[in-house]
Amino acid sequence: MSRTPHTKTPETAPAGGKAPDPARRSDRSRRAILDAALALVGEVGYNKLTIEAIAARAGVGKQTIYRWWPSKAAVLLDASLALAGDAPTADGRTGLPDTGDLAADLKQVLRATVDEFNDPAYDAPLRALTAAGATDPELAARFTERLLAPQLALYEDRLRSARAVGQLAEGADLRLMTEMLLGPLTYRWLLRTAPLSHAFADALVDAVVATA
Amino acid sequence: MSRTPHTKTPETAPAGGKAPDPARRSDRSRRAILDAALALVGEVGYNKLTIEAIAARAGVGKQTIYRWWPSKAAVLLDASLALAGDAPTADGRTGLPDTGDLAADLKQVLRATVDEFNDPAYDAPLRALTAAGATDPELAARFTERLLAPQLALYEDRLRSARAVGQLAEGADLRLMTEMLLGPLTYRWLLRTAPLSHAFADALVDAVVATA
Repeated sequence: MSRTPHTKTPETAPAGGKAPDPARRSDRSRRAILDAALALVGEVGYNKLTIEAIAARAGVGKQTIYRWWPSKAAVLLDASLALAGDAPTADGRTGLPDTGDLAADLKQVLRATVDEFNDPAYDAPLRALTAAGATDPELAARFTERLLAPQLALYEDRLRSARAVGQLAEGADLRLMTEMLLGPLTYRWLLRTAPLSHAFADALVDAVVATA
Repeated sequence: MSRTPHTKTPETAPAGGKAPDPARRSDRSRRAILDAALALVGEVGYNKLTIEAIAARAGVGKQTIYRWWPSKAAVLLDASLALAGDAPTADGRTGLPDTGDLAADLKQVLRATVDEFNDPAYDAPLRALTAAGATDPELAARFTERLLAPQLALYEDRLRSARAVGQLAEGADLRLMTEMLLGPLTYRWLLRTAPLSHAFADALVDAVVATA
């Protein structure tokens, strides 16, 4: 323990002096590791992914990864959170857009989700992780708690705002509506039963908004 | 080539004489192979499944399997079709129930689907195959064509009957309604975001039927 409460750790030190900024270097390494993990899981699948391969692809030592994450599942969870944070749907992670027009806002978000699903940079890792979670309940529980449940909550929050201003019926089941938006989209994406398009996203929103 | 056109092959010969019936024996072997394939894919996953292991579990020779199927994917496709054929939802594979009460009929079918998803004998192989299909487009395309598309068509047919007698609006999008029924159910099952219950199935049917 340090007696100096303001002592900075290397990972959080601000820029200063002539040496390369350790905080920035650390951020770059962290980002390289997350990017490598996403790219690799899309290429080889979850089961064959190793910390060694992630380290090699990211250009860091294995110990750098183990310093921050205890397992490949933990790396991938943070990588997925970063991916979700990059996505236009997350909107700075403060909530879904709220222009006052519920259908328009939901269409914007669902169209962006369609674009993600159709983008190989998202599609490949998300497929690999969904496939792994389908048959690995412990992994699935972690992803549901940290990633899916907060996403579902964003939709419920937006629907709650609409209900509060009388755009949805008092008794509208917000959770059910959320699953009616995301379920069919995820179904088409994962099972490839039909092409995912903006038109499909729009039709889905109109149908779901009409239920309440 | 035989000059006797009516010569029976062992696999299709009817019962007769004192020997065990080859057709029945063949049916038993076939069923044992399909059951073994389903059980094993649920235990070890698609990638680790081998024809050798299926043969050993079924108590048949490897060549017996190769005589009927060219690959494990082909065995699993037939096994899944047999599983779907056993399911109460398939209703003799002639269509969904039609008592004239659309919501009641759909609830019956979706409740049965919930029961299947909650039954380990269905859950494990379906998860393994869905996970494999998620990252194997060729496998997914075969399963979609032979298994999923015909199932979706059964729902569309039932909705079409309802539309024909004026229970749904003229412009009702039957495909969209079908995906709004099956998407959320499959999403909850696969991603384990919440428990799958009859109450959820009923709420989903009521909401979807209300859209048109």
